[in-house]
Amino acid sequence: MRIRPLRIAVDLMGGDFAPTNELLGALQAMVELKQRAVEIVLLGHRERLREVAQKLAISIEHLPVLHTEETIEMGDDPTEAIRLKRNSSLVRAMELHASGEVDAVVSTGNTGAILAAATLTLGKVHGVSRPTLGTLVPTEQQRPSVLLDVGANVGCKPQHLYEFAIMGSVYARELLSIERPRVALLNIGEEETKGTSTLREAYRLLKASYLNFIGNIEGRDILRGTADVVVCDGFVGNILLKFGESLAAAWRARLRALGQRGLWRRLLLWLFRPTLRRLLREFDYQNYGGVPLLGVRGVVIVGHGRSTPLAIRNMIFRAHEAIQRALVQRLEAALQVSPVSA
Amino acid sequence: MRIRPLRIAVDLMGGDFAPTNELLGALQAMVELKQRAVEIVLLGHRERLREVAQKLAISIEHLPVLHTEETIEMGDDPTEAIRLKRNSSLVRAMELHASGEVDAVVSTGNTGAILAAATLTLGKVHGVSRPTLGTLVPTEQQRPSVLLDVGANVGCKPQHLYEFAIMGSVYARELLSIERPRVALLNIGEEETKGTSTLREAYRLLKASYLNFIGNIEGRDILRGTADVVVCDGFVGNILLKFGESLAAAWRARLRALGQRGLWRRLLLWLFRPTLRRLLREFDYQNYGGVPLLGVRGVVIVGHGRSTPLAIRNMIFRAHEAIQRALVQRLEAALQVSPVSA
Repeated sequence: MRIRPLRIAVDLMGGDFAPTNELLGALQAMVELKQRAVEIVLLGHRERLREVAQKLAISIEHLPVLHTEETIEMGDDPTEAIRLKRNSSLVRAMELHASGEVDAVVSTGNTGAILAAATLTLGKVHGVSRPTLGTLVPTEQQRPSVLLDVGANVGCKPQHLYEFAIMGSVYARELLSIERPRVALLNIGEEETKGTSTLREAYRLLKASYLNFIGNIEGRDILRGTADVVVCDGFVGNILLKFGESLAAAWRARLRALGQRGLWRRLLLWLFRPTLRRLLREFDYQNYGGVPLLGVRGVVIVGHGRSTPLAIRNMIFRAHEAIQRALVQRLEAALQVSPVSA
Repeated sequence: MRIRPLRIAVDLMGGDFAPTNELLGALQAMVELKQRAVEIVLLGHRERLREVAQKLAISIEHLPVLHTEETIEMGDDPTEAIRLKRNSSLVRAMELHASGEVDAVVSTGNTGAILAAATLTLGKVHGVSRPTLGTLVPTEQQRPSVLLDVGANVGCKPQHLYEFAIMGSVYARELLSIERPRVALLNIGEEETKGTSTLREAYRLLKASYLNFIGNIEGRDILRGTADVVVCDGFVGNILLKFGESLAAAWRARLRALGQRGLWRRLLLWLFRPTLRRLLREFDYQNYGGVPLLGVRGVVIVGHGRSTPLAIRNMIFRAHEAIQRALVQRLEAALQVSPVSA
């Protein structure tokens, strides 16, 4: 029986603009979630937080801050970092989650370190070989798709891809409200015989499963939204994710260059700016904010290092949603169903 | 000693809009290249050409058309097709090239079939394990990069990637006029230890080579133009290529949707259309037209099935350029240099 309110731990030290954006986003979520009886626990270096708070003309004295001495940097080796920096905001947050003091962890830090710390501290859900990280991809349809793995699970076996498909499917159903998500394998052709032997075997597993498997899709089908869940090896997923993240910047650069040629064009560009900005936002992968790390025994929301305060606020809301939808329990249940049964 | 004029064979039957676009593009090139003493040989089904020509109100009677009875379709199995359809425009064009009657082949047909027919009929350049197809990628810089392999060479070994790097480098130097092309491996991190064992071994080979190897780059560096030659396995390359090709369409769809909301926005969109169209064109991979198939003993320019007449005209010019720059001979020479020597 739960007698305490829901609690979400926020790692304030992870991102590129930490702890400023993290603090601002957490504060906003804190105000909004108060009436829903959700508490936020902040983890970070108290002195650095004080400095930042002072600049922002706010006080952190009344806030639930847990002081952590160390910080895991973006460049740190993940396994090394979590072994050596035991008193970092990330490791401490995971420990709070493992001991049941909080119900979720939100972090914008070193993705590899989050993955390692979560797997090591929380453990894996029964039936999961490798926890996975997905990303939301904008599509021509009105709703995004889930692309996974993008968490650098390189050299996946058919069974891994199969598990990613199950986890992605549960995620799409529970957090994107897609009742029967269409699952596809990302391949270089639609035919069953295409691609590597790993993909052919994964195809076979998925075809025999209870999932709504629609077969192979190609690179061009991702943005069309042909599938709700797109499954691939972490190598391909990571390259696609980073390519996708660079698109908005490339467009902005080219638009700026075009705007410099002639007054009329510059005027038009200025008038058109709000529309363009909106469009670029749709294609800006960063705005989708955090995604849950799937397959660990806990709710861990991973965000981009460059997350804005709004993105961080959204991550905290997503954590709340994942707790409420019992994401971990549903993942575990889905993975217990044997491949060939309904 | 060459006593006849240069001759380029154009497969008229390959593309999605064949033979109309192919015929129009070839006619334009024919007129422009006449003064440079370059002859074009057209291969296709004479009756179908007559029908198309009639609709266009032109005559093909005076044109150098070589009648071919069969056509290799986009859905055909490549090796099957070139074995059974000996009298197809594609196979016949390759045979003309192999026997020295023409100096280059241009085709917008089934890519797999072009690859198979070229490799089988022309043979491979000494030192090449697998011929490769690249694509030009627009960048934030003013010039495109070469991404290869995108020709579906799946499961590449380190030696294959190493050869792709050499061939891409020669291509960038000879056809893009980049003196010392920066070569990079596409990976999930910049460190030498990242990615698969294949990539680590390829890294070692490239580091020891005479190429201007700048190390690993990530997905986000492609559009930045960090490297002139981006080397990857055909699986990743194919997915990236098709994802890239779908971008312009996705943007157009979203812009159209935005334009439907409100009169002011629609007016702005209309005013802004020429600028946007120009921008979209830059990102429309199809406009880069054909790329040479690298590593076969001949000049073979492969184009997109949906090539416009202009794209086909450009492909013929590119074939001419490749002949003049002695691309095949230079590839062969570059591949003879041992990895560790200068």
